[in-house]
Amino acid sequence: MLHWLKQYRRAQLLGDISAGLVVAMMMIPQGMAYALVAGLPPVVGIYASILPPIIYALFGSSMTQSVGPMAIVSLMTAAVIGPLAPPGSALATVLAAQLALVSGAMLLLCGALRMGFLANFFSRPVMSGFTVGSAIVIAFDQLHTLLGADLPHFHLPSAVLGVGSLLLLVLAKQYLAGLLKRCGLPPVAADIGAKLAPMLVVIGGIVLMAATNLPELGVRATGAVPAGLPHLNLATSSAHWRPLLQPGLLIGFIIFLMSMSAAQTLALKRNEKLVSNHELIGLGAANVASALSGGFPVTGSLSRSAVNFAAGANTPLASLITAALLACALLAPTGWLALLPLPTLAATIIVAVLGMLELGILRTAWRYDRGDALAWGATCLGVLVLGVEAGVVIGVALSMGTLIWRASRPHIAVLGRIAGSEHFRNIERYPAETQPELLVLRIDANLFFGNMEAVVERIECELRTHQSARQLVLVMSAVSSIDTTALMALSELNLSLKRRAIGLHLAEVKGPVMDRLRHSELLHQLNGKLFLSTANACDHLHAASVVA
Amino acid sequence: MLHWLKQYRRAQLLGDISAGLVVAMMMIPQGMAYALVAGLPPVVGIYASILPPIIYALFGSSMTQSVGPMAIVSLMTAAVIGPLAPPGSALATVLAAQLALVSGAMLLLCGALRMGFLANFFSRPVMSGFTVGSAIVIAFDQLHTLLGADLPHFHLPSAVLGVGSLLLLVLAKQYLAGLLKRCGLPPVAADIGAKLAPMLVVIGGIVLMAATNLPELGVRATGAVPAGLPHLNLATSSAHWRPLLQPGLLIGFIIFLMSMSAAQTLALKRNEKLVSNHELIGLGAANVASALSGGFPVTGSLSRSAVNFAAGANTPLASLITAALLACALLAPTGWLALLPLPTLAATIIVAVLGMLELGILRTAWRYDRGDALAWGATCLGVLVLGVEAGVVIGVALSMGTLIWRASRPHIAVLGRIAGSEHFRNIERYPAETQPELLVLRIDANLFFGNMEAVVERIECELRTHQSARQLVLVMSAVSSIDTTALMALSELNLSLKRRAIGLHLAEVKGPVMDRLRHSELLHQLNGKLFLSTANACDHLHAASVVA
Repeated sequence: MLHWLKQYRRAQLLGDISAGLVVAMMMIPQGMAYALVAGLPPVVGIYASILPPIIYALFGSSMTQSVGPMAIVSLMTAAVIGPLAPPGSALATVLAAQLALVSGAMLLLCGALRMGFLANFFSRPVMSGFTVGSAIVIAFDQLHTLLGADLPHFHLPSAVLGVGSLLLLVLAKQYLAGLLKRCGLPPVAADIGAKLAPMLVVIGGIVLMAATNLPELGVRATGAVPAGLPHLNLATSSAHWRPLLQPGLLIGFIIFLMSMSAAQTLALKRNEKLVSNHELIGLGAANVASALSGGFPVTGSLSRSAVNFAAGANTPLASLITAALLACALLAPTGWLALLPLPTLAATIIVAVLGMLELGILRTAWRYDRGDALAWGATCLGVLVLGVEAGVVIGVALSMGTLIWRASRPHIAVLGRIAGSEHFRNIERYPAETQPELLVLRIDANLFFGNMEAVVERIECELRTHQSARQLVLVMSAVSSIDTTALMALSELNLSLKRRAIGLHLAEVKGPVMDRLRHSELLHQLNGKLFLSTANACDHLHAASVVA
Repeated sequence: MLHWLKQYRRAQLLGDISAGLVVAMMMIPQGMAYALVAGLPPVVGIYASILPPIIYALFGSSMTQSVGPMAIVSLMTAAVIGPLAPPGSALATVLAAQLALVSGAMLLLCGALRMGFLANFFSRPVMSGFTVGSAIVIAFDQLHTLLGADLPHFHLPSAVLGVGSLLLLVLAKQYLAGLLKRCGLPPVAADIGAKLAPMLVVIGGIVLMAATNLPELGVRATGAVPAGLPHLNLATSSAHWRPLLQPGLLIGFIIFLMSMSAAQTLALKRNEKLVSNHELIGLGAANVASALSGGFPVTGSLSRSAVNFAAGANTPLASLITAALLACALLAPTGWLALLPLPTLAATIIVAVLGMLELGILRTAWRYDRGDALAWGATCLGVLVLGVEAGVVIGVALSMGTLIWRASRPHIAVLGRIAGSEHFRNIERYPAETQPELLVLRIDANLFFGNMEAVVERIECELRTHQSARQLVLVMSAVSSIDTTALMALSELNLSLKRRAIGLHLAEVKGPVMDRLRHSELLHQLNGKLFLSTANACDHLHAASVVA
């Protein structure tokens, strides 16, 4: 906690100040926009950008992560509170804060239980499919705000402003950095300058609204933004906790996945070590803080964190500076923000999420592993057709399904002796000798509930092929664990072989596995022996059969 | 399909007839009881016992499985349709049939997609915890029917009849088989005879109701059972399909798990091979048949299948005979069934599910693997506290969580050369020689999204320990697959090592893995070489470093 502060060097300060400033300029339109995505008053997005990054700086482990509102988490928030309260209402705000509290509590609990391994529940193709599907949903949802009316209708002044803002932002994204470079700015500064385009377009929109009669023509604006810092905003009297529990769990999971994926990308660039359990605590505490200061669920955002990193952030001090600047902005007169035209805000959202339409992973997966490419497609389609919550469930199911499917095809080799040696090798690859009364199988996988049925089936299949085998030797050199299900299945196999008068022997059992097996009854009931080496087993069993 | 009929031998007939008769006698009270558990009119349970086993006999792969109503699946049915329709109502019946149709369609779809590996999604401790939790819920739910009123009240005549029936059934379970043996019956016949106690108690209950004034005292009975065979009963006009989709998926999953677990137990005893994809088709078709004949979700029942097997069933003909007998029972006058007292039926349910309170697996897991024992407890508690549907989700989450947790700790060994040989071994276990500029790591796990982060972390950790290493050799002899996520992480590791001027070399890559890697860019960008053997790699790299 705060270990970065103890080692703080003055040389890091300039980078942190510049990054803090740049991210603050980015955060104001982004925070308001993502609050809009979540169906909340825009100011909630700014509230959620002040206390959470401060708390994350205290508990998190990433140096350059920017914690705050994020598009996909906002979409999930909208999916949960949408059916429970009208968009923008006071109830929606309270529910969003409660949702952040539930998610934060779940993350803290997972952190306390050291469940950081949960970050491995999604494969990258599934994560990418989920992100692309969500981005499309968000962009599509904003069309009616951009055009001022539901498709296929539009409100002309709103549509002109919205589409104009969109064009400006797209052009800025494409050409602004190049233009600034040609104007003599150093490349890094030019790239960062281009990221401030949304702020400039938003200011332009406000100026237009103030200077023209657009408001009278019916172009909607964000409306009055209450000045002053957020206050505790968590109605404990509300009876709406129960429907938030399960979605809160799902959102907590996505908060963790999104943030870890962003933090990992940056940690790789800075050659830093990330501690997933600390991330759980940091994100959990940040969400609780968001709830207590009138915000909504927050997470680390890859796009914003990348800007933070590029603008020179060295430590979480950059985030503290961002938070301080946002707090100042709220303490200053906020009347000007009330005129922010919603079509312009919608345009910034659409441009931001279009940047998430990254198809590189799909391309890699398609070339390398069609199954992974299908998982990408199924998750993306799931989000589009069934919604973002179902998308998470589908993503987990697909990741786990792939896992179980792969596990259900364990590698098992029939071994033979390399003539004149102590070595035993796969008879399919080496000219190795076998004995008809002896079947030697090497199991190349840890034994657990997901593959045990396949292992037993394969053993039975080999026994049918080798009808003359009276002794079965399982070479356990590659088995580092056997779970309870596999232990029970081995015991049943042992009994079944006993009935058929076939001996079951184990060779090369690893130390930790043997320690475990001593607590079981399998060893006492074993219809055969334990051998230290495969050669020992074969010599002994062959000698015994010759004597018989 | 029907392969057993082609090879039918006359010697099998007697066993099949006797088993068909015994199971039919068992099925009448059981079917009615489990329909009651599902919140449906008792006759629905008999409908669900006629067509489904006939269809299963055509498509399924188990020889002695008895498909029909089953306690846990009935409990899940009640959990789904309970909030949508009053118990016993016409709407409840229609919804139950629709639910069977949805589950059946899902199972058929999974079968068509050859997704039989889904049976491996639960570990045995989780399955056992789920069963025990469900049994307790079912028994507890029946208490108010047994006593004729909600706890702590009771309706005296009902309670006397219910508790009396319960005592009789418990005594019969405990002592009847022994008594019949002492009367000279052969042990197998005595055991089977004891299984008919529920039928006898039910008949006794009906006689009591007919002969005394119990009905006038307020003891409730099943009421009129419509005579005649079931007819197509699937209102397509109902707008209730959508809320049934997700529960239908969950119930389909449990139908498959329960049936596979029962069939596997029997297949082991008969040394038979079970084809999980055929089971999906068989169970799917049986549930569709149940829906079309006015039934509700059905599955293979372990207790009934065990009786079927013990009573001599050799082929699915036994099930066909059972179905024919039940159809005859419905065609005969059914007025007598109307007097069946509900407290007695509740007693048969309680005794049946108490038989499911099997703690052997918990005991084994507790001694062998505390983690598995905890999973047992968490699943059981989940069913009791959060309900049976949440229990399934918790069970899957725990099984998968254990899996990812185990995967997140892959075994990686630092290798050294056994002096004067070509052999490389784990330096922690063997006196092996290493070179300071060379780090050789053997990865003992398939690389996939679940363990790749841990693998990279471990590699970085070893690089920090071996600061002087300029060349890293990954020995891939135990890696049989690399998924897209792992491929991408390896590429990132390669780039990161390149920046640090550390060579990355791969040795002993298996054939199938190499075929895959050729479709990727990792090999072209590799900051090092591929070697056929570890010895080759070390000789070459050592020679190169000496030259340098």
